[in-house]
Amino acid sequence: MATLINRSWRLVARPEGAFKAEDFKWAEDPLPDLADRQVLVRQIYLSLDPTSRGWANETPTYLPPVPLGSVMRGLGLGVVEQSRDPGLKPGDYVQGMLGWQTYAVTEGQALSRFDRDPNVPLDAHLAVLSHIGATAYFGLLEIGKPKPGETLVVSGAAGAVGSLVGQIGKIIGCRVVGVAGSDEKCRWLTEDLGFDAALNYKREPVLPRLRRLCPSGIDVHFENVGGEILDAALAFINMRARIVLCGLISQYNEFVPPPGPRFLGNVLIRRARMEGFIVLDYQGRFAEAFRPLAQWMAEGRLRYRADVVEGLEQAPSAVNRLFSGGNIGKLLVRVSDEPAASL
Amino acid sequence: MATLINRSWRLVARPEGAFKAEDFKWAEDPLPDLADRQVLVRQIYLSLDPTSRGWANETPTYLPPVPLGSVMRGLGLGVVEQSRDPGLKPGDYVQGMLGWQTYAVTEGQALSRFDRDPNVPLDAHLAVLSHIGATAYFGLLEIGKPKPGETLVVSGAAGAVGSLVGQIGKIIGCRVVGVAGSDEKCRWLTEDLGFDAALNYKREPVLPRLRRLCPSGIDVHFENVGGEILDAALAFINMRARIVLCGLISQYNEFVPPPGPRFLGNVLIRRARMEGFIVLDYQGRFAEAFRPLAQWMAEGRLRYRADVVEGLEQAPSAVNRLFSGGNIGKLLVRVSDEPAASL
Repeated sequence: MATLINRSWRLVARPEGAFKAEDFKWAEDPLPDLADRQVLVRQIYLSLDPTSRGWANETPTYLPPVPLGSVMRGLGLGVVEQSRDPGLKPGDYVQGMLGWQTYAVTEGQALSRFDRDPNVPLDAHLAVLSHIGATAYFGLLEIGKPKPGETLVVSGAAGAVGSLVGQIGKIIGCRVVGVAGSDEKCRWLTEDLGFDAALNYKREPVLPRLRRLCPSGIDVHFENVGGEILDAALAFINMRARIVLCGLISQYNEFVPPPGPRFLGNVLIRRARMEGFIVLDYQGRFAEAFRPLAQWMAEGRLRYRADVVEGLEQAPSAVNRLFSGGNIGKLLVRVSDEPAASL
Repeated sequence: MATLINRSWRLVARPEGAFKAEDFKWAEDPLPDLADRQVLVRQIYLSLDPTSRGWANETPTYLPPVPLGSVMRGLGLGVVEQSRDPGLKPGDYVQGMLGWQTYAVTEGQALSRFDRDPNVPLDAHLAVLSHIGATAYFGLLEIGKPKPGETLVVSGAAGAVGSLVGQIGKIIGCRVVGVAGSDEKCRWLTEDLGFDAALNYKREPVLPRLRRLCPSGIDVHFENVGGEILDAALAFINMRARIVLCGLISQYNEFVPPPGPRFLGNVLIRRARMEGFIVLDYQGRFAEAFRPLAQWMAEGRLRYRADVVEGLEQAPSAVNRLFSGGNIGKLLVRVSDEPAASL
């Protein structure tokens, strides 16, 4: 049997500002033989996420930095082709830190096997029934604790997480206002996803518009972006408001983080709570989120959009679309073809 | 019986920046007769608190603005001289919103009667067994939730609240680091109050010093000041750190609040919680705090310092010492003489 060749992007420099082509190096290497308990996974979809920018820095975030010279870290979905782990067999679908490569050789234990839901496309298993859906679900419900009738504001609302957060808010009975960076995104939120209102922060003055769109103030603010939008949200928080700090994507490319929100005094006066959230803390409970998320999708109450880039070669250029606002919904790279659904 | 004359400071202008003499007007007026359920209180000690600066603004804080022309709002301690409230009798000690005046005519229900503790000076009933002690106790224990062995940082540490917070932290078994604005204050914290370390933010570089004084990071940060100190604290918070936003005194004199902390990203990455605290929310539970506070005082484990200004006339100039760092411990105005303890 011919030796399989793995193609990968290795991180070879610490990015200064945005990711650049020279920070990555394309590599083609023969795959090693499997050790005991290892599996060989062919990656189908690679997820590109804002958090990857932090992983590339020298300073640890909530995970250690990606070592220079090694394959860039990334979450992906694939199919097992060879297995020396008794818990996994060829043909099994798995999710996990597959990395920016065509094949991953990894401990079976580090992967999550999943049954393909025949009612949803395969990419939904990365765009919704994944870290993304779990982030929206647990971040909103466990940290934000929204109640029916409350006003929920979501920044990065047309992103993978934000678009789900807003829809879950609607399902719960909140008034939902999304903040996004283009009229096209805003139309998607209000016309297709059922948000009550959307604000294009690149075109409209954020403070006065947000005040008009939230006449009863803000009870829950789900923050993916930081900067001007967080500041404006704090200006209008109600008593006992909850601010979920899920992402601060506007500053991931900055070496020195910019100053924080001016309206922090309102957190004090209104006895608000601002809390950081990392979905890794809920890893053992993902199934708890996937059940309702899958059901809502089946009922047509939860929609997603996958923004699919063709070919692993495109990953380094595609990843920057997360920071320029160039994607709508979940940004994915199609690394290889998916098996026919009947398999 | 001769009509009693009440002397008062009325707020006659909205301060721009710090309080100025012209923002207040001295008034002398005959006291009205008591209506049913009202009492006449002779004020002994008036408490000067940073939060009063916010009350003087046109914008509501957690209380409505003090109306222009009316007596400046302030918490005080006094003795009942006349009563038409069946629950209070002449000679009773009370605390409440007595205002910047020598006598207060108010509903008896709006006051808290207290038994004078023979073991402590009368001013301790305003400096510790009051909103001050309750703020330190509930803010630290219920929002900060410190555990033995954790590192607690307190800003405004030589202030009324901060000095108690640090001592309660020591009683619980925390490593306590105070941040204050003079070497004299820092010496008081470490030599008299038992803080493990203190940092003079006006003389020492805050970021590197705080890192050195908190070698295991910061688990609980009790914020009274805001600005540079909050930012530095966030730079070193540990996983699941708790930040109690109790005061942001560095910005109370600003019309437009300054930008917030740069290191907000750490709140996200470390899953920290930052929460606003106003002691009014605990008004029904003050007794719960006063029992242990009084006991700790009796045991010599909790000390306080009252910085007493003589005469109501001094209130407008004295209040600014809160913002310039001119006071150590609780800033009080002696409005009238206290009755002999045996009465």
